[in-house]
Amino acid sequence: MAWDVFDESEYERRLSRTQERLLEEDLDAIVVSDPANMNYLAGYDGWSFYVHQAVIVTPERDEPVWVGRDMDAGGARATTWLSDASIRSYSDDHVHSPYDLHPMDYVAGVLEELEVATGRIGLEMDASYFTAKSYTRLQGNLPDAAFVDTTLLINWVRVKKSAAELEYMREAARISEQAMQAGIDAIGEGVPEYEAARAIYDALLGGTEDYGGDYPAIVPLMPSGDHTGTPHLTWTDRPFEDGDPVIIELSGCRHRYHSPLARTTFVGDPPDELERTADIVVEGIEAALDRVEPGVTCEAVEEAWRETIAQYGLEKEDRIGYSMGLGYPPDWGEHTASIRPGDETVLEEDMTFHMIPGIWTDEIGMEISETFRITGSGAETLADFPRKLFTS
Amino acid sequence: MAWDVFDESEYERRLSRTQERLLEEDLDAIVVSDPANMNYLAGYDGWSFYVHQAVIVTPERDEPVWVGRDMDAGGARATTWLSDASIRSYSDDHVHSPYDLHPMDYVAGVLEELEVATGRIGLEMDASYFTAKSYTRLQGNLPDAAFVDTTLLINWVRVKKSAAELEYMREAARISEQAMQAGIDAIGEGVPEYEAARAIYDALLGGTEDYGGDYPAIVPLMPSGDHTGTPHLTWTDRPFEDGDPVIIELSGCRHRYHSPLARTTFVGDPPDELERTADIVVEGIEAALDRVEPGVTCEAVEEAWRETIAQYGLEKEDRIGYSMGLGYPPDWGEHTASIRPGDETVLEEDMTFHMIPGIWTDEIGMEISETFRITGSGAETLADFPRKLFTS
Repeated sequence: MAWDVFDESEYERRLSRTQERLLEEDLDAIVVSDPANMNYLAGYDGWSFYVHQAVIVTPERDEPVWVGRDMDAGGARATTWLSDASIRSYSDDHVHSPYDLHPMDYVAGVLEELEVATGRIGLEMDASYFTAKSYTRLQGNLPDAAFVDTTLLINWVRVKKSAAELEYMREAARISEQAMQAGIDAIGEGVPEYEAARAIYDALLGGTEDYGGDYPAIVPLMPSGDHTGTPHLTWTDRPFEDGDPVIIELSGCRHRYHSPLARTTFVGDPPDELERTADIVVEGIEAALDRVEPGVTCEAVEEAWRETIAQYGLEKEDRIGYSMGLGYPPDWGEHTASIRPGDETVLEEDMTFHMIPGIWTDEIGMEISETFRITGSGAETLADFPRKLFTS
Repeated sequence: MAWDVFDESEYERRLSRTQERLLEEDLDAIVVSDPANMNYLAGYDGWSFYVHQAVIVTPERDEPVWVGRDMDAGGARATTWLSDASIRSYSDDHVHSPYDLHPMDYVAGVLEELEVATGRIGLEMDASYFTAKSYTRLQGNLPDAAFVDTTLLINWVRVKKSAAELEYMREAARISEQAMQAGIDAIGEGVPEYEAARAIYDALLGGTEDYGGDYPAIVPLMPSGDHTGTPHLTWTDRPFEDGDPVIIELSGCRHRYHSPLARTTFVGDPPDELERTADIVVEGIEAALDRVEPGVTCEAVEEAWRETIAQYGLEKEDRIGYSMGLGYPPDWGEHTASIRPGDETVLEEDMTFHMIPGIWTDEIGMEISETFRITGSGAETLADFPRKLFTS
C-alpha cells in the first residue's frame, strides 16, 4: 500500500504543489510518463514501464488519474493512494499491437473525459518512455489540444525532499556503505568481475538488520583496468589482474530512493600517481562540500572543485554532480540541477545531490563521490564511508 | 571486445540483412535507438541508455555509425566491431542541457555528413528511449528529410537466432534453472520477500562453474499472496506467510541474451484447486508446445492452449507468449510476434519465444512458463526444470 510508504498527506502536498505549477503555467492538465514522477504523484510502484502508462494531473481534481494496462490496474490499486475511480486501464490488445491500437489512444480518451481535450496539455517530451509515437498518437487523437513541453516540471517539484523522503535516502545510504565494503572486499587478483557484482548485490538486496533493499535504478558499475576510462561498461567474466584500478559506483535503494556512492580500489600496490590523484580528488570534494550552503549556486560549488584541483595542474570538463533521489531504470538522476559551469540553480535546504567528480588520465581513472543534503548552513553527506583510495 | 562475444562475420551478416531491408523500404538511412538493436548491429554494450544515443545504418556504408556521449566513446571502442571513423560522440553540454542543446542536434549533423539529410530516414518512433523530443529536434534540424516509422524493422531482423546467439540463450537457460531453484529454496514462511530476491540474484550473477551472469533486462518478479494477481510488483520487506502462492518470473542473462522462466510455488500445503490449476496449465503448455513447428502460425499455438484449458472451464484473454532474446531494461521482449489470437506470424526454425500463460482467479494466480526455440520439426525448450506446482 502506498500509505505504508508515505502518509496520504505527503501525496496531497505533492499534488497541491504540482497544481500550483499548472496554474502558473496556465495548463489544463499534465500527462506524466516518467515512472519516478508517476510514483511521486500517485505512489505507483511496479516494473510495468515497458508498456505505455501515465499519471494525469489537472489543476482542480483532488486526485491524479493513473492510466495503465489492465493487468497492472491491480498493482495500481495495491500501491497508490488513489480511489478506484482514478485508476483507468486499457485492454491487452493495445500492447505491441498488430491492430493499430496504441495506449495513448486510450489516454486521449481519458483526457477527453476530463474535459481538457481542447486545452493546454503539458507533456514530458524528453522523458525516457514517452516515445515519439506516444506524441504523434496524442496529436492525432486530440487535434484541438495545445501541447506544451513540460519535461522537467514534476522533476523540479521533486527537488526539495521531505523528512520522510530523506529518511528513505538515509536508509539507502546505510545499504550503499555495506555494498561498497562488500565490493572492495570481494575484488582481488584472479576474481572474475561478476563475482564482485554478486557480492555487491548480496549487500544491496540483503539490506540491514531492519530492512531489505530494493533494486537500484542503475546496476553497479565497475569499470576496471583499461576500462576505468569507460565509465558505463558493466561487469564481464574477466578476472581482475594485479595492477588494475577498479571504480565502483553503486547505490542502495529503499522504496525507490537512492543514495549513490563511488570509490576506487586498486588490485595490488597502487602507483604513487594514483595515490596523489586520490588525495587531490578528496581535497577537491571537500572544498566543494565546504562551499555548499543555501543561497550558493551550483556553478559556485563546481568552481570550488575546479580551482582546488587546478592548483595541481588537473582539470575535468564534465559536470561533477546532479540532483537525484527517487528513480527507476535507466537513471536515478532527476535531470534538473547539475553541478557544472553555467548552472545558476540556487541551492536550498533539503535539496539532495550526488557529487561524483572523476579524473581520467590517459592511463588511469579515479572516482570518489558523496551524496549530500543541503542543510540550513552546509552539506550533510548521507553515507559514512572513508574518502580515500582503497586496495583490494 | 565485441569479437570476444561474436565473430565479425556475425555482425556483417546482421548489417547485410538490415541493408536489404532498407533497400526494400526505399530508405536512405535508419536511426536505431533501442539499446538491444544498437547492440545487435554494432556490438555496443554499456549502461548509457539514460542519455540519447543511436546507431545509424545506410544501405551502402560497410559499417554502422555509433553516436553517443563523449565519455561513452571509449566504451564503444571497447565493445563494438566498428573502426574509429564510425564512432562519433557529442560533448557533455548536450546532456540534460540548460543550453538548448540536444543530442539529436548532433545526430542530425552526422546524418548530414552521411548525405542523407534530404532522404527517407527511418526512425524507431515507439522505442522506449526515442523520446518525443528526439523526434521534434530531428524534424527541426532536418526540415527536408522524410521521416518514416520503422519501429520494429531491426527487431524483425533479429527474430531468427544464429547458432552463436542460441548458444548464449542456452547458457542463460542454465542460469535460469539455478536461479529458479534458489528462489524456490529460499522462500518460506516468515522469510522476507527481499531475501528470496537476494538468493535469486546470487544465482543469476554467480552463473555456473564456467561463466558468470549478466544483469537481466527485467528484475526477478515475485508477486505473492494477494499480489499474485498483480504480476509486475517487485519484492518488499513483507514476510511470506503460510498459505501464500508465489509466482517467480526471472531470467538468466549472458551477453544480454535471456532465457526467461516462470514457476509457481506455495508456502505450506497448497489447496486442491491450485494443484488442479497447475495440472491444467501444464497440460495447456504441453498442447501448445506440441503444436509448434515451422509453418504453423502464432495464433494456432495460442489456440491449442486455449482449447485445452477450455475443456476445464478456464479461459485467459491476454497473450500467452512473445518473441524474445537480446534485451536491456526495461524489457527482454522483442515486440514482434506474439502468441495470441490474430497474430498470423508463421513460425520459422530458430525463432525463440517465451510462452508464459497464466491463470488468475479471484483468489489466486498461477504461472508456469517455458522459453523455446523452433526446431526443424517442433519445439526445443531451453531450460530443463520440472513443470509443476512447487511448495516452499
